[in-house]
Amino acid sequence: MDDVFVAGVGMTPFGVSDNSIIELARDAAIAALNDSESISERIDRVIIGTQNPDEFTGVGHLSTLLTDHLGLVPAGAFRVESGPSSGSSAFEAAVALVSGGLADIVLVIGVEKMSSVDRGVASKILAKMMSYENETRYGATPAALAAMVARRYMHEYGLTRDELSLIPVKAHRNGAKNPLAHFKKEISVERVNNSRIVADPLTLFDCCPTSDGAASAVVMSQSKVKELGLRDSSVKVIGVGHGTDYHAVQHRLSLTSLNATVIAARTALRMAHITPADINVCELHDAFSILELIDMEDIGLCERGHAICLVKNGETEVNGSIPVNTTGGLKARGHPTGATGIAQIHDIIRQLRCEAPHGLQVDSPSIGLTHNIGGFGNNMTVFIFGI
Amino acid sequence: MDDVFVAGVGMTPFGVSDNSIIELARDAAIAALNDSESISERIDRVIIGTQNPDEFTGVGHLSTLLTDHLGLVPAGAFRVESGPSSGSSAFEAAVALVSGGLADIVLVIGVEKMSSVDRGVASKILAKMMSYENETRYGATPAALAAMVARRYMHEYGLTRDELSLIPVKAHRNGAKNPLAHFKKEISVERVNNSRIVADPLTLFDCCPTSDGAASAVVMSQSKVKELGLRDSSVKVIGVGHGTDYHAVQHRLSLTSLNATVIAARTALRMAHITPADINVCELHDAFSILELIDMEDIGLCERGHAICLVKNGETEVNGSIPVNTTGGLKARGHPTGATGIAQIHDIIRQLRCEAPHGLQVDSPSIGLTHNIGGFGNNMTVFIFGI
Repeated sequence: MDDVFVAGVGMTPFGVSDNSIIELARDAAIAALNDSESISERIDRVIIGTQNPDEFTGVGHLSTLLTDHLGLVPAGAFRVESGPSSGSSAFEAAVALVSGGLADIVLVIGVEKMSSVDRGVASKILAKMMSYENETRYGATPAALAAMVARRYMHEYGLTRDELSLIPVKAHRNGAKNPLAHFKKEISVERVNNSRIVADPLTLFDCCPTSDGAASAVVMSQSKVKELGLRDSSVKVIGVGHGTDYHAVQHRLSLTSLNATVIAARTALRMAHITPADINVCELHDAFSILELIDMEDIGLCERGHAICLVKNGETEVNGSIPVNTTGGLKARGHPTGATGIAQIHDIIRQLRCEAPHGLQVDSPSIGLTHNIGGFGNNMTVFIFGI
Repeated sequence: MDDVFVAGVGMTPFGVSDNSIIELARDAAIAALNDSESISERIDRVIIGTQNPDEFTGVGHLSTLLTDHLGLVPAGAFRVESGPSSGSSAFEAAVALVSGGLADIVLVIGVEKMSSVDRGVASKILAKMMSYENETRYGATPAALAAMVARRYMHEYGLTRDELSLIPVKAHRNGAKNPLAHFKKEISVERVNNSRIVADPLTLFDCCPTSDGAASAVVMSQSKVKELGLRDSSVKVIGVGHGTDYHAVQHRLSLTSLNATVIAARTALRMAHITPADINVCELHDAFSILELIDMEDIGLCERGHAICLVKNGETEVNGSIPVNTTGGLKARGHPTGATGIAQIHDIIRQLRCEAPHGLQVDSPSIGLTHNIGGFGNNMTVFIFGI
């Protein structure tokens, strides 16, 4: 792969917003273009990552609409969708366009506006990423599948309810320091344990919220970075991995490992010529608390069943040996599905540029990783960034 | 751009189908994989081009679903959408992934199943690709915009109703020889002139149908083509262009030229190091008859206002100097929106391989072009292929 850089990032606050999907996307994009100091350059492509704007908001044809709205005509534009990893897949397409020599500057925008429909409608839209034949028609929900995975993980590795609660507690502790997070309030283990059961053993605080929000990145070729003198502020994309798994959970080899993550992480690490031990900071897809532990193990940050030891020893904290979800993760930063992948990239780029929010900056990281899940564990992307 | 090839293509019949969107996509994909002789190879990515499966069919998360259904797990997968040019944008993403070194073999599938909803619902879904603020809310439809364009073109260049009718007549004459076409019946100028007015001056036969169907292509790196010994049967992608225009027609500089086509064609021609005169056969987006004339002029196949002279002189016929839409175009082949871009590529690849249907083969073409419109003239892709 030819050298590809992220020259700028931008993001709106995540949460419930009065802004339209167009306004959210526009605000993130303008922030990213300003951050990249290339707002007056010719943008070759505009790629939009969004899961389902048509059904969440009634607005369609978003790629052309936004290109016009942002004053970026005649840049070629398309939308990319892969469920909740739509932002990451859009970023992958952008990296490919630049690496493949079809573009020098690509603006990527991840966006979702989920609060315009009521919870029941949102659940129906989100349920499409599960298997209808094998799951949805029997009443399964994403939380129910996650609960099954959590039960099995507890059985295999002896994880306790108190231990699992450490994940959302850390997420909220970090989110409290992130001005852009959906939730900025710390919570206790007791609060997690005693909150409403969503799907036994998972409680309300094991589950990420649905959010509104947008994030954006400016992807740039090496020659353009040089031409604009942006090398010092740009971060290099050094690894790209993307894998799928069987659509229905019941068809997979394991409940306690998501094989698509293993495939995506292995590919990205090989491309980056590094091992998991070289990663200084990472953003993992913790839509449900149990997933953060499984993600860590699938990426190879520790042995199977040992992720919770790292958590208990404080190694996944901001000042630990492998900080995970330093800005709150999906749990506290929020999860506007199509925006999440780019928000993860936004936060890792800021870490590598030592611009994380106060109290969240990892000590001089040089390599960061993002991991985003589409569907319930069936479509994973992993990116690795280096300075 | 690194050398990228199309190693195989496949397509279902277009029309009204009893098959589901999954079945349509599967049939086209298996045909393309078989055609490429790489059905037993590892597929690195599966890219789906489709406009709106969620609202047309209720099925979402199509990229993962199809990857699993086709037995291609763990290939990374995503869907690409840009309105009626979704198939072409998916192809562009596939070319970028291969050219950028992220994949050696990418399976691209364009698909749409439009007959599951009634005409009123379909119209509402399709209207999203127009500007709500400037067009849809005043009752404008794609046909109404096309009619306005046709009126202006007639005024500027003196095009007559009889002349315009030559376009659908040629489309149906070619479609009658294409076993996969939606319409296989010839029509006369009188039939076009006297059919029901849809939006004055356009009649029913000036407008393409909504269709069900799928088409697929196997995109391959040069090294993989060599390794598999497929050079003789593979066609090279020599030009890629993609441009947008202002979303609303009223904001554009001209009614009788679609600037996004000019941009896309110029970019693709420059990349291919050729002039329009070098093109031996092309598939243009004739969703409305008037567009075929404007497309020809925007690509540079003739001077402004002169396209109809080429048509009248028979130059756009199969045995003419610049055959256009030899397999029926959108008008007669049909227009399952997300599938159209790949169907155009399918038909051009078959032309370059001298495998067009009986009576439709152009005499030994070596360079072919496809042109696909997303929205009403606001998102265009042009590809150029060479043997």
